[in-house]
Amino acid sequence: MSGAFTAASAVRRIDERTWAGEIALGWDIGGNADGGYTLAIAARAAAEAAGKPDPVTITAHYLSPGRPGPVRVEANVVRRGRRFATVAATLASNEGPVLALLGSFAELGAYEGPERVDAAPPRLPAPEDCYLLEPTETLPPPFMGRVELRLHPQEVPFAGPAGPPRVSGWFRFPGGEPVDPLGLLVAVDAFPPTVFRAGLPVAWTPTLELTAHIRARPQPGWLRCAFTTRFITGGFLEEDGEVWDSSGRLVAQSRQLALVPRG
Amino acid sequence: MSGAFTAASAVRRIDERTWAGEIALGWDIGGNADGGYTLAIAARAAAEAAGKPDPVTITAHYLSPGRPGPVRVEANVVRRGRRFATVAATLASNEGPVLALLGSFAELGAYEGPERVDAAPPRLPAPEDCYLLEPTETLPPPFMGRVELRLHPQEVPFAGPAGPPRVSGWFRFPGGEPVDPLGLLVAVDAFPPTVFRAGLPVAWTPTLELTAHIRARPQPGWLRCAFTTRFITGGFLEEDGEVWDSSGRLVAQSRQLALVPRG
Repeated sequence: MSGAFTAASAVRRIDERTWAGEIALGWDIGGNADGGYTLAIAARAAAEAAGKPDPVTITAHYLSPGRPGPVRVEANVVRRGRRFATVAATLASNEGPVLALLGSFAELGAYEGPERVDAAPPRLPAPEDCYLLEPTETLPPPFMGRVELRLHPQEVPFAGPAGPPRVSGWFRFPGGEPVDPLGLLVAVDAFPPTVFRAGLPVAWTPTLELTAHIRARPQPGWLRCAFTTRFITGGFLEEDGEVWDSSGRLVAQSRQLALVPRG
Repeated sequence: MSGAFTAASAVRRIDERTWAGEIALGWDIGGNADGGYTLAIAARAAAEAAGKPDPVTITAHYLSPGRPGPVRVEANVVRRGRRFATVAATLASNEGPVLALLGSFAELGAYEGPERVDAAPPRLPAPEDCYLLEPTETLPPPFMGRVELRLHPQEVPFAGPAGPPRVSGWFRFPGGEPVDPLGLLVAVDAFPPTVFRAGLPVAWTPTLELTAHIRARPQPGWLRCAFTTRFITGGFLEEDGEVWDSSGRLVAQSRQLALVPRG
């Protein structure tokens, strides 16, 4: 039984290098499909091309907003190694290219070797004590009906005084659909922009580029997520993300470069 | 008058999509060309293809070690916009592909808008009080003759007790060659791996992927650099870098994903 995310990001192979998919209704923010979701569609095709399931490191450059409707993914295997396969791909709609992707895929799993973590998961009140972002037709956007976000009550955008550009909270898919490594691509781009907390004008904050490292397959359950921006300079801002699973393990790291909203 | 870096990363256009270049002697670490330097060769060709000079955000996936000798860069403009041009490229030697790249290029410059920085440049003793990494035929590698690195004296690998996986120090090109945005691609991959400080076996730490955001053109003078690793897990580690110029401005942010050395 496939969940709503898996169905909405499904692709069908057309030929050696081409896949067909669809940007589904309801995954948008102000009419533009969520960037993590759009990337997941392209990544699913790229993983098939790679013959390996997990995007260990994947980068998307966003070329134009994705709108609901059919899309085509062209994927080329740049190198196929024993452990990693590297794929370059583009996702295009009938109007033109939406994103370009470069990713290295592998099978995440058993590993024995040194481990060292100099960080801890974000401290969050229990999900039921956090702020549930519910979808509306405008803001919060329809996309919030496709994911379940519960924000740290002291980091809710538009509520309370401006604070440091940080947003944290819980993430899961509705209906108990597990978040797999492709689902993590949605998690790293699902939260409201950190800059909405910084007293900047609330406006479209277009992502130029997003890179995600998928570090492990998540255990079932809520994911703890935290996003921080330290540099709003020269018209650009970065947003650094971390996603931790219910076992307390980091499962994804992300960074995106976005344009400062013009207000 | 072009400096040694500019000369060693020069490319010559062969046709619409193809450039010729060379991995020069002396830019290697144990026989393998420095990843930032190799990326700079490919980025120079990609910038020409883009018709815009600065790699605002650029990602390389490393496919095989680069050895001295001729290389070929194939670059395709994925989208040419008013402000940004996005290019996908590969750099290959006669033996096969060395790296794949995806980058968005623009002209960095004047911008007026909100700025906010929640970070400070690394605190470093004066360059003359730092540890000069001088090249040898083994370790420190020949590459250290192409750049000038001065490490924080308390963060010198192999000296003193193991510490947190952090390395910081000063960077410049020898002979007064200015560090331009392409030179910053060398700066973000020039320092010894942070894990050499963490008590892990000192061994080849292959970079799988490197992403750099070039946030501004550096002012002349020494660059302050800091690199940190927080997660050594599942056989992977990330290394986060920051480069600040002499005016106290962040000029580059980087993150790479590398394989934990096997000892």
